[in-house]
Amino acid sequence: MHSMQFTAESSSGDMLERDFVVDGAPGVLWSPAADVADRAPLVLMAHGGGNHKKHPAMSGRARLLVTGCGFHVAVIDAPGHGDRPRTAHDEAEIAELFRARAAGEPEGPIVVRYNDHLAKLAVPEYRATLDALGELPEIGADGPVGFWGINMGTAIGVPFVAGEPRIAAAVFGQHWPDVLAEHAKKITIPIEFDLQWDDEHISREEGIALFDAFASKEKSLHVNSGKHKELPRFEADSAVRFFARHLGRPITSPA
Amino acid sequence: MHSMQFTAESSSGDMLERDFVVDGAPGVLWSPAADVADRAPLVLMAHGGGNHKKHPAMSGRARLLVTGCGFHVAVIDAPGHGDRPRTAHDEAEIAELFRARAAGEPEGPIVVRYNDHLAKLAVPEYRATLDALGELPEIGADGPVGFWGINMGTAIGVPFVAGEPRIAAAVFGQHWPDVLAEHAKKITIPIEFDLQWDDEHISREEGIALFDAFASKEKSLHVNSGKHKELPRFEADSAVRFFARHLGRPITSPA
Repeated sequence: MHSMQFTAESSSGDMLERDFVVDGAPGVLWSPAADVADRAPLVLMAHGGGNHKKHPAMSGRARLLVTGCGFHVAVIDAPGHGDRPRTAHDEAEIAELFRARAAGEPEGPIVVRYNDHLAKLAVPEYRATLDALGELPEIGADGPVGFWGINMGTAIGVPFVAGEPRIAAAVFGQHWPDVLAEHAKKITIPIEFDLQWDDEHISREEGIALFDAFASKEKSLHVNSGKHKELPRFEADSAVRFFARHLGRPITSPA
Repeated sequence: MHSMQFTAESSSGDMLERDFVVDGAPGVLWSPAADVADRAPLVLMAHGGGNHKKHPAMSGRARLLVTGCGFHVAVIDAPGHGDRPRTAHDEAEIAELFRARAAGEPEGPIVVRYNDHLAKLAVPEYRATLDALGELPEIGADGPVGFWGINMGTAIGVPFVAGEPRIAAAVFGQHWPDVLAEHAKKITIPIEFDLQWDDEHISREEGIALFDAFASKEKSLHVNSGKHKELPRFEADSAVRFFARHLGRPITSPA
């Protein structure tokens, strides 16, 4: 049992937003406003590096899942992100990343090691969040659960999903294989994986190597032209359709 | 001006089916039964090797486009396919393909050269079909047109689209780069490209090389696990959404 407390509640259009804290990690749970008490599948999301749980990329994806499919969607702030304090280690790693970026040096080695550090802290937090959310009657402990995280969300999500049998389908993408490939080899659930073909940080070979590492019988790689931050919006629609297929929830409004 | 004649008409559910002949090539035009006179974008399709214009893969994709988006959809039989006679050259190439298959030899060299031969015949037929369909008031000569062809449909479609400014967006996939890459380099419209990751005939490197050759600023590669004939059904849904985005037609029924 984990201590979960709801700390705030608001709604916007068709979507109810409830802030919560689980074991000290601040999170947000989005649900269909009209059917909040109806049991529906949960999609856990993880945000990207330097962002936070309510970044527009998170709330926008949540809106597609909640209003398009009736899912519940939850995100927690990663350690050192959003409403959470930065440690001296966080500050040092971020400074090193900015230094490398300014010097035109590769970001990969720093991002890989820093995200690995954060993932080791975040994985038990995601597990505790899933435990706690499963105690809510509108989610339940036995329903299928999805996971959606790109960039740092993949660095946290791949080790989390590798050790988490409750996750039934996952969308990942845009990270290096160095640390993650070993975890990916243990993952057998359906995967959709996003990769940018002209990524200035992650080479094509690195991106494909991580996709290749998943043991999943059913896996899809979506490559798009464009740089690291140019992942097209329509990949969010595609991810929603992926979760609708695998979590058994028809799309009720076309996106 | 090309001679186009409608030769049969039937309807099934929401879809009107009209057989036609243009310059001797037999084709089929599918349209929304209720709104057949309404001007709407056209998607030209090309069928795979050994199949024909009304193969379930064609009529199924047409149904998604017609009933989901209100498009018109047309396919013609490739030379030597469907209702068209086989020449002695067709018979010899097909026999050679079957011989190689039975002997466990690579099919690629035979398919590449035979499809290239058929494409040289089919490209002017597709151009004539587009000319003739553009004279119909419900299609018109100035609307955006899509092209959708996988396998042999790509072998015909890539040279066709490379020389056809009326095509605004195209879905291709599952062919070798040998003959087609040179044509693909001239194509700049948005592309969605399907590739099977465990294709027993087309290597990953060959598939990616053809995708890479397109000069399109906006292009997406969809890789799925599975063998040559295991292209997932959901890629048809994805293609429909691609055409809805690029031909300016909202999806009215969620697929």
